[in-house]
Amino acid sequence: MNQITIPQFELVYNSLSFGVAAMGAATLFLWLSRSSVAPAYRTAVTISGLVTFIALYHYLRIFNSWNETYTVVNGTITETGVKFNDAYRYVDWLLTVPLLLIELILVMRLSKEESTSKSIQLGSLAALMILLGYPGEVSADSTTRWIWWGLSMVPFTIIMIQLFGGLKKAIDSQPESVRGMVGSARLLTVASWCFYPVVFILPMIGFTGGAATSAVQVGYTISDVVAKAVFGIFIYAIAVRKSEAEGYTG
Amino acid sequence: MNQITIPQFELVYNSLSFGVAAMGAATLFLWLSRSSVAPAYRTAVTISGLVTFIALYHYLRIFNSWNETYTVVNGTITETGVKFNDAYRYVDWLLTVPLLLIELILVMRLSKEESTSKSIQLGSLAALMILLGYPGEVSADSTTRWIWWGLSMVPFTIIMIQLFGGLKKAIDSQPESVRGMVGSARLLTVASWCFYPVVFILPMIGFTGGAATSAVQVGYTISDVVAKAVFGIFIYAIAVRKSEAEGYTG
Repeated sequence: MNQITIPQFELVYNSLSFGVAAMGAATLFLWLSRSSVAPAYRTAVTISGLVTFIALYHYLRIFNSWNETYTVVNGTITETGVKFNDAYRYVDWLLTVPLLLIELILVMRLSKEESTSKSIQLGSLAALMILLGYPGEVSADSTTRWIWWGLSMVPFTIIMIQLFGGLKKAIDSQPESVRGMVGSARLLTVASWCFYPVVFILPMIGFTGGAATSAVQVGYTISDVVAKAVFGIFIYAIAVRKSEAEGYTG
Repeated sequence: MNQITIPQFELVYNSLSFGVAAMGAATLFLWLSRSSVAPAYRTAVTISGLVTFIALYHYLRIFNSWNETYTVVNGTITETGVKFNDAYRYVDWLLTVPLLLIELILVMRLSKEESTSKSIQLGSLAALMILLGYPGEVSADSTTRWIWWGLSMVPFTIIMIQLFGGLKKAIDSQPESVRGMVGSARLLTVASWCFYPVVFILPMIGFTGGAATSAVQVGYTISDVVAKAVFGIFIYAIAVRKSEAEGYTG
């Protein structure tokens, strides 16, 4: 790991703890509210809570790993020699990113065939995107990082095009009252996802040493909270609105 | 244990953590979704969640055992002298493998007599298969491993024949809309189960030292996630489809 300062250590430490609290809270809210939506939308809400639950588990692990990597005693920070495990993020994304796309597809309530085919297609592309990003993330060499970043951007771009173009028709078929919200959820996905490739290249565009390490950790944490917890609440709100429109009274 | 390299250690470490997250997520999904299926299928879904829950417990134990066996400090890996406990997997299988077969039998909703007799027959064979495999797994001697592997393959083969032949008639009696899915669940069982005896013989067919140790751990983890979590979701999907076909609206 790069040598970092105490304020940088504390910033990451507190961000990770914020991640734990946000993911835990979102999970409980979503699962407790499951019965407030019509049965047709319950799987979407259950999966939203599943995504934040998986993230909660990984944020607890990342938090512990961060604390095992450094010790702060008497105003001095020293490395313990234990390696910070960055792989937790990738294991998390491998499980949660396909599920996030499935949430969005399920809440739209398309036909069974369309839901299944879109879930498989976008889910597989998302898994491929994560797997291609990992070899770059664990490399310290800038060229290697750029190569894997570029490869990972291929499925990323296809997913973005699908979300923007492919789902446009599906959004137009949504009831009037939720069309705006579904559109916003799609925009939130696109905007929060664009954050990740930017955070990835921070160490390649001038951020060095402790600044790079802490910027990457804080950046990913904010992105994760937006893309998983905030997005999950959005999915829930859409499900509530659609349930009401369909006459569900709870 | 065999001496392993840091990348091998980390690969197993991250696979085991992936196992924990996948089993935990599957358990909660299955138990939360229990009410989405007709009462007749709830036991099948509950047991599916039970299988992944038992696996969650054992993966937490295996993960901790793995970390107690090695220490990585300042880029050097050393053995602590604490033995890695492989028995957790066998205790897990002894409980979960008979339950997995019962899940599949229950979701088919055969007659009471047939369900009971098939559950007892296949469940006992599965327990016998695990018990016969264990003495081989803990032996370092190739001949001993082959003998117990061979003995364990006897109940394994009978189960496979039963699944392929004996359940064929039962599958033909399923409603049209789920016949394909039940057939796929049966195939998924057969395919994922065939993985285990292959992983078992890796150390006997040329994989040595750290490569053997890590290949066996990663192999069993992937097999477990497919045979328990993915299979459980499959059982749930079949239960949903059958509930709908029988007019259950949730």
